[in-house]
Amino acid sequence: MGKIVTFGEIMMRLQAPSYQRIMQASSFTAYFGGSEANTAAALAQWGKDSVYVTKLPKNPLGESCLRNLKYWGIDTSKIVRGNGRLGVYYTEKGASQRPPQIVYDRKYSDFSLSGLDDYDFEDIFKGAEWFHFSGITPALGGNLPEITKRAVEAAKKAGVRISCDFNYRSKLWSVEEACKVMTDLITGIDVLIINENQAKEIFGIESDELDEIASVLANKFNVGSVAITKRRTISGEVNEFSAMLFKDGKGYYSRTYSIFMIDKIGGGDAFSAGLIYGLTSGKSFQETIDFAAASACCKHTIEGDMLAASVEDIEWIARSDGRGRMVR
Amino acid sequence: MGKIVTFGEIMMRLQAPSYQRIMQASSFTAYFGGSEANTAAALAQWGKDSVYVTKLPKNPLGESCLRNLKYWGIDTSKIVRGNGRLGVYYTEKGASQRPPQIVYDRKYSDFSLSGLDDYDFEDIFKGAEWFHFSGITPALGGNLPEITKRAVEAAKKAGVRISCDFNYRSKLWSVEEACKVMTDLITGIDVLIINENQAKEIFGIESDELDEIASVLANKFNVGSVAITKRRTISGEVNEFSAMLFKDGKGYYSRTYSIFMIDKIGGGDAFSAGLIYGLTSGKSFQETIDFAAASACCKHTIEGDMLAASVEDIEWIARSDGRGRMVR
Amino acid sequence: MGKIVTFGEIMMRLQAPSYQRIMQASSFTAYFGGSEANTAAALAQWGKDSVYVTKLPKNPLGESCLRNLKYWGIDTSKIVRGNGRLGVYYTEKGASQRPPQIVYDRKYSDFSLSGLDDYDFEDIFKGAEWFHFSGITPALGGNLPEITKRAVEAAKKAGVRISCDFNYRSKLWSVEEACKVMTDLITGIDVLIINENQAKEIFGIESDELDEIASVLANKFNVGSVAITKRRTISGEVNEFSAMLFKDGKGYYSRTYSIFMIDKIGGGDAFSAGLIYGLTSGKSFQETIDFAAASACCKHTIEGDMLAASVEDIEWIARSDGRGRMVR
Amino acid sequence: MGKIVTFGEIMMRLQAPSYQRIMQASSFTAYFGGSEANTAAALAQWGKDSVYVTKLPKNPLGESCLRNLKYWGIDTSKIVRGNGRLGVYYTEKGASQRPPQIVYDRKYSDFSLSGLDDYDFEDIFKGAEWFHFSGITPALGGNLPEITKRAVEAAKKAGVRISCDFNYRSKLWSVEEACKVMTDLITGIDVLIINENQAKEIFGIESDELDEIASVLANKFNVGSVAITKRRTISGEVNEFSAMLFKDGKGYYSRTYSIFMIDKIGGGDAFSAGLIYGLTSGKSFQETIDFAAASACCKHTIEGDMLAASVEDIEWIARSDGRGRMVR
Amino acid sequence: MGKIVTFGEIMMRLQAPSYQRIMQASSFTAYFGGSEANTAAALAQWGKDSVYVTKLPKNPLGESCLRNLKYWGIDTSKIVRGNGRLGVYYTEKGASQRPPQIVYDRKYSDFSLSGLDDYDFEDIFKGAEWFHFSGITPALGGNLPEITKRAVEAAKKAGVRISCDFNYRSKLWSVEEACKVMTDLITGIDVLIINENQAKEIFGIESDELDEIASVLANKFNVGSVAITKRRTISGEVNEFSAMLFKDGKGYYSRTYSIFMIDKIGGGDAFSAGLIYGLTSGKSFQETIDFAAASACCKHTIEGDMLAASVEDIEWIARSDGRGRMVR
Amino acid sequence: MGKIVTFGEIMMRLQAPSYQRIMQASSFTAYFGGSEANTAAALAQWGKDSVYVTKLPKNPLGESCLRNLKYWGIDTSKIVRGNGRLGVYYTEKGASQRPPQIVYDRKYSDFSLSGLDDYDFEDIFKGAEWFHFSGITPALGGNLPEITKRAVEAAKKAGVRISCDFNYRSKLWSVEEACKVMTDLITGIDVLIINENQAKEIFGIESDELDEIASVLANKFNVGSVAITKRRTISGEVNEFSAMLFKDGKGYYSRTYSIFMIDKIGGGDAFSAGLIYGLTSGKSFQETIDFAAASACCKHTIEGDMLAASVEDIEWIARSDGRGRMVR
Repeated sequence: MGKIVTFGEIMMRLQAPSYQRIMQASSFTAYFGGSEANTAAALAQWGKDSVYVTKLPKNPLGESCLRNLKYWGIDTSKIVRGNGRLGVYYTEKGASQRPPQIVYDRKYSDFSLSGLDDYDFEDIFKGAEWFHFSGITPALGGNLPEITKRAVEAAKKAGVRISCDFNYRSKLWSVEEACKVMTDLITGIDVLIINENQAKEIFGIESDELDEIASVLANKFNVGSVAITKRRTISGEVNEFSAMLFKDGKGYYSRTYSIFMIDKIGGGDAFSAGLIYGLTSGKSFQETIDFAAASACCKHTIEGDMLAASVEDIEWIARSDGRGRMVR
Repeated sequence: MGKIVTFGEIMMRLQAPSYQRIMQASSFTAYFGGSEANTAAALAQWGKDSVYVTKLPKNPLGESCLRNLKYWGIDTSKIVRGNGRLGVYYTEKGASQRPPQIVYDRKYSDFSLSGLDDYDFEDIFKGAEWFHFSGITPALGGNLPEITKRAVEAAKKAGVRISCDFNYRSKLWSVEEACKVMTDLITGIDVLIINENQAKEIFGIESDELDEIASVLANKFNVGSVAITKRRTISGEVNEFSAMLFKDGKGYYSRTYSIFMIDKIGGGDAFSAGLIYGLTSGKSFQETIDFAAASACCKHTIEGDMLAASVEDIEWIARSDGRGRMVR
Repeated sequence: MGKIVTFGEIMMRLQAPSYQRIMQASSFTAYFGGSEANTAAALAQWGKDSVYVTKLPKNPLGESCLRNLKYWGIDTSKIVRGNGRLGVYYTEKGASQRPPQIVYDRKYSDFSLSGLDDYDFEDIFKGAEWFHFSGITPALGGNLPEITKRAVEAAKKAGVRISCDFNYRSKLWSVEEACKVMTDLITGIDVLIINENQAKEIFGIESDELDEIASVLANKFNVGSVAITKRRTISGEVNEFSAMLFKDGKGYYSRTYSIFMIDKIGGGDAFSAGLIYGLTSGKSFQETIDFAAASACCKHTIEGDMLAASVEDIEWIARSDGRGRMVR
Repeated sequence: MGKIVTFGEIMMRLQAPSYQRIMQASSFTAYFGGSEANTAAALAQWGKDSVYVTKLPKNPLGESCLRNLKYWGIDTSKIVRGNGRLGVYYTEKGASQRPPQIVYDRKYSDFSLSGLDDYDFEDIFKGAEWFHFSGITPALGGNLPEITKRAVEAAKKAGVRISCDFNYRSKLWSVEEACKVMTDLITGIDVLIINENQAKEIFGIESDELDEIASVLANKFNVGSVAITKRRTISGEVNEFSAMLFKDGKGYYSRTYSIFMIDKIGGGDAFSAGLIYGLTSGKSFQETIDFAAASACCKHTIEGDMLAASVEDIEWIARSDGRGRMVR
Repeated sequence: MGKIVTFGEIMMRLQAPSYQRIMQASSFTAYFGGSEANTAAALAQWGKDSVYVTKLPKNPLGESCLRNLKYWGIDTSKIVRGNGRLGVYYTEKGASQRPPQIVYDRKYSDFSLSGLDDYDFEDIFKGAEWFHFSGITPALGGNLPEITKRAVEAAKKAGVRISCDFNYRSKLWSVEEACKVMTDLITGIDVLIINENQAKEIFGIESDELDEIASVLANKFNVGSVAITKRRTISGEVNEFSAMLFKDGKGYYSRTYSIFMIDKIGGGDAFSAGLIYGLTSGKSFQETIDFAAASACCKHTIEGDMLAASVEDIEWIARSDGRGRMVR
Repeated sequence: MGKIVTFGEIMMRLQAPSYQRIMQASSFTAYFGGSEANTAAALAQWGKDSVYVTKLPKNPLGESCLRNLKYWGIDTSKIVRGNGRLGVYYTEKGASQRPPQIVYDRKYSDFSLSGLDDYDFEDIFKGAEWFHFSGITPALGGNLPEITKRAVEAAKKAGVRISCDFNYRSKLWSVEEACKVMTDLITGIDVLIINENQAKEIFGIESDELDEIASVLANKFNVGSVAITKRRTISGEVNEFSAMLFKDGKGYYSRTYSIFMIDKIGGGDAFSAGLIYGLTSGKSFQETIDFAAASACCKHTIEGDMLAASVEDIEWIARSDGRGRMVR
């Protein structure tokens, strides 16, 4: 079993208490989170040899972040240290018609100012089986599009399988920029993960059938598998979630979860983790998509960015009737 | 743009934690709230010159209250200081079939014992554009029916537009007393605000059409506009809310919000604020009722008596699909 | 009005905060709870002479437990003290598809290691009117099956009416053991309380009609009345609850409550308390089952094991429309 | 062993968090406290039959107060219920040169408005051994001087021993009023408790020797024993405390405690409890004053008004070297 | 009475709970603080027309900061808004030998990136009586040395009196840079505030007599008055503080406070506020230095950057015996 | 640099809030701690390859414990899992004359019930440089004296250096038992750590000179070095701490720290960590004892069992003047 490498930014998340708004808060709960770090934490917790690569400042916040990554069992030996700042983001819960709000303060972070030679990918991918990153990493600008490209190339050269969560963020870059940079990065990788809306809007695919959408993307970018997640916002409290994995011309569908949302952040990252776990653990495609969807569902019932649940917990949800009955 | 004057009582609100009952609580979260103060806070926050008139004790609780009013940007220069006590009320959340509970400890407060000459309304209304009060103010008894009458007369004399939120409270006075005192106070004012149930039960109006009810009230009390709010208690957690503004023979209707209630207090006060904001800011009648209803809806998603939301937040809700989607 | 005696184990309950999982928690809220203690607390609070019998260690945790029992008005004079440990259990909230989790650390507790002669039941039942216990007490093993048997015999000898909440727990013993021990204990008692699923699964009763199920049990165990509770898990957040009391060949049915669950623990114990309260206070059978079902419903809206609500609160719920409207 | 009866007011105490000032606090911790209630709680906890008499409103705050009294094991059966309000007081910690601050909101409380016939002292003193009250009770005005007088007379008539903590409060009445009313109440009682400063300032006693001061008071008011407490404020954090019991012409002195003050409230009430405990439990005069002084010392190390400590805890302190070493 | 203008940066302060270290904290308490803002808040609270000038981002954190400034009664009408970030700093308490720690994350803040023309000082100083700034403002670099110079010049031109707290921070600039920039800014102002150590180390003054040190500085920089503060670190918990005001050749000395430190931040800013308050309120020089020193002392007994205390509170401390006795 | 192996029990520590007593607490803060685990955590944090060996239950509490060990960077790969319970201990702060209290609930824990063959010490000591254990481990009884003996023998066989913190606990075993078992374990090891009082009382050494005491022990048990810690309880708040390392006939003494105690637990474990760190990192004997004493001092200023501080933090304290001045 080889290493699973992830690469991206992790920030401190400061959450306003209860249903208070950020501008009202006189205290914050601190978590750490970032798309790839969230995925890495789930994988490490499930027993995978999970190597997370990022850049953290040498100060008490960077130290706290590092310890929290170790807490999950992540291999932090490839993390680079800088002398600047850690990105921070502030969150408040929404309710009913009032949407949740996020204030990012991630500009000028050590990671976003990464130097071209900060990471030795040749070394990093030694003994690796898988490499995962999200579209947020290159979206941070500076040297990161180039660095991400080098990472992908190094992974390919080392024969490592690659997955990417497209994860387009309109606050970070335009669709045009994203398409240009991402096309380069995702062409020829093994697994592309994207949500239904982004697939349709960004690539102008008109079908409502997830397997048809996936088929278009698989051909367009020459990727081995495409996983598509689908969300419906029923209300401020309830979301529906389902997903599909497209492989060799066939779509494998998960069931649809109706979720009372405790935390809206990190569901996609948990999905990626579930997918990678399934694909590297000998699960069938159907089992894999079921496990990945249950991971996303479970994440939304837990506070914080990261999915605190065992393989057994996820499998219990995947095969349960979805009503969360207590066993005594 | 002239001053908007509000007059009434503000109390400290002590909220039991989580779903604990008051009798179980070993700690309380402190807010400040009162019908007119809540309205004044929203208006000040939205950039209006909001002058709130009340009487507060000269002690640390009165000082804390004063600072919290300033926090919202309220003009507190007309607040009178006394030597007695601040009213307090204790709240607990309800859930499902168990209703929320409020214990009032407002008797003997400095405000409720106001002297006839405590407030110089001639001075207060200099430069004023609008005067708003609720039916709670005269309901507190003592000199307050007479003082409120003097306020209304001074406002009329100064050419200030007047709104009143009928806000009948059965714990404070009987329907007979209320009708007698309120008729005097609301006759000839510019905007009467009342909820559907009180309109029908207190004035014996049998129609279920809000515009018909409003028409009866407009004629009966010779008021320029009537705004009616309508609530349906779907469950302990979910309420429906809509409203109508009746002007020149026509009813302008908001959409109906289905709200997962975070805090059941202050919705009507936010509605009044939204209405006054619209009517003093050049919004059309339709825009005004939409803004006012969205204000009430938004308030119920936030803890505490007061509506912590910008004009942009409210307008976002007014034009959203009501499902509170996060934008990233 | 005579004493109502209850006998069983009480533990400290340590609850993880908010929606955190036990394995994430860095703090816990402490409650005390146990099936019979919960029932005793409700009865004492409602004015009954409620005598709770258990064994507590002579240490600060035992002392804290004792004070918390007194807080409810329970007569603690018959509680025995030991030199060992207090049982503890850890809980976390579930959400949506993720079920709530309970970790028991009750083994080796002073109560579970009770000696055969620790309790002087002849003395305990002097002046008693009622004796209540649950199936958990004998399930704890050691001497407890024998001690419970002695309690039942002493109660019968003293002419005390007896109720038992069957409360089968698969984590404590097998169905076979339970049937063997419980048959002995419940035969000939006055009121048997059981939930629909256990009645059907354990005793192989195929009917879906609660009165038919009850009739079978009444005959089989020669008990005067049978009360059956019925739950439907609609989702992780919403449960339905109703109940029936079978007496003299007739089933008295409560309405069905749809409950947004704040705390999943203690509903059955509150039901037992409501039932005993009704039967010892001159309520009719219909009033009794209505009161008992409202007690269970109300419990699930309150945090902690115990039902903090007055007789008036319960009766308000029993006759309300079930939507928890606030009265101001 | 007879009942020990105490009579006075209990209030809710709302404490600002940490070192925050009342005017800054956005939450409060709730305790209950009152001079005689504090004494009653300690006595009940130590196994005495402690009957506390007061008047509490029939509302959730009165109910909470009642349950908290039961928590300590107090006999609450003689407590009268009213329909008004519970007194409240707000506290903040001082530090260094900034003194602690207390804001009282006790006016108009049910107790302070007690009717002349609210309490049936003849009944209350049946089976009583001791009656204790403080100077605060008559200081509350209204009918309370007269009611307290009736209590003292009823106690004397029933042959009950009487103690009084002089406890003069300048915020409640003048020295003149106090002297007039108190002289009447304390003349001929068994134990007078007073602090050194009040003894000297109010009664113009010039000696610095506690036994000389006591001797003057014993003669002046014809009391059997006089206990005098002595405090030195070393700094905002550290106080010195010692005490003396004067009996039959002899002064029994405790050691002097240098206390790092955790809570400045309730030390005198704990002292009274310790004194009464000693005098009703067969302790010698020296043991009694040692136990009473250790009670006061221990109280100041615990948050809240009441002394949460066993007889063993107090005796440990009384015989320790005063440095609080941990035993493992 | 004219306006008192202050100019500088305000940040959010995130404080680790209790004695936890920043790297351990899983929650933070949020305050706002900055040298000049702290001074402005005290002055506004004491009734002065306090105008604080800074630059805040237009986001929820900037909005929260703005509201908190209003809370104190500060005139925020001259605050400029930007589109970037708010500076943040993280603090942990020290204890004994372990020093308190501060992590600054203030780089790239909107204020530190202020444009040369962001502030219209001619307009700002209309109607002003006093201008105060600290050495931190120019130390932030970028355009701030030049902007501060413009502010000083505009103040002089408008006939406004000027005070400066030297406040050298070694983490922000070198002694050489500081001397060069500060000399320019403080020459010819009315009041220079500096602590003893900085005066001696930076300007090489060898005297230990505060008035001699002040005399040197007054001559060197041609300033009307010099105030010098003096601290002694007795232990991690206890500091000594005293101060002197030098005017017309004479030194006015405060007493020395021995302070049990609750919060080590903001003492100097409170001192500046006390000094300006005295000098603009008709207090004598002796009264002024006494008031200023008591302000600093009081600040260290309160959590957060700002001094929550009335003029009466400060005067009480100034004339007390320094032992913080409670009055009841 | 080889592995440093530690072996012993880790428990969950539940701490009552603030100065509340355990019997009052309605919530607890959760830490994990145990003598050897505390030592292991400090060493891992300082960059050592720290392998901690224990037995943890396979349940959420065991999982939480495991994650918290990883958080510090500890190698948890040799930890054995059981099916029983995790030991727990409850703590409250003392103050002044009231001592801190600890309630242990560690009996029947998985570790204390360890089987003779649970640990494969031959494997564990591969690549190890150092083995450390405390006297608590064999004191837990059952198989642990024998298991500890096997560990020591395996370490010796593998040429691993051994240290032991004598750490006698009177609640766990008698002096006689301890002497018998410990003599066997410590004879011939490399470093014996013991506090002055235990050395004198248990081994009847009458000298007050630490080097003389050490010399006796070194000879008696044939150990290479002896480290002795010395504490003086000045008051409930302040302790003095110093230490000496005896090596080759010479005593190396640390300075004496006067510590305002934030947490009384874990100081000795931090001392052991500091000692081992110094001896395995090329520090001189004097540097080593200075580092070890500063580690103990620093630990007492931090809440929780474990020493959250970097090598730089400790060295700063070792060379500071001990007054904890803030650097800005």
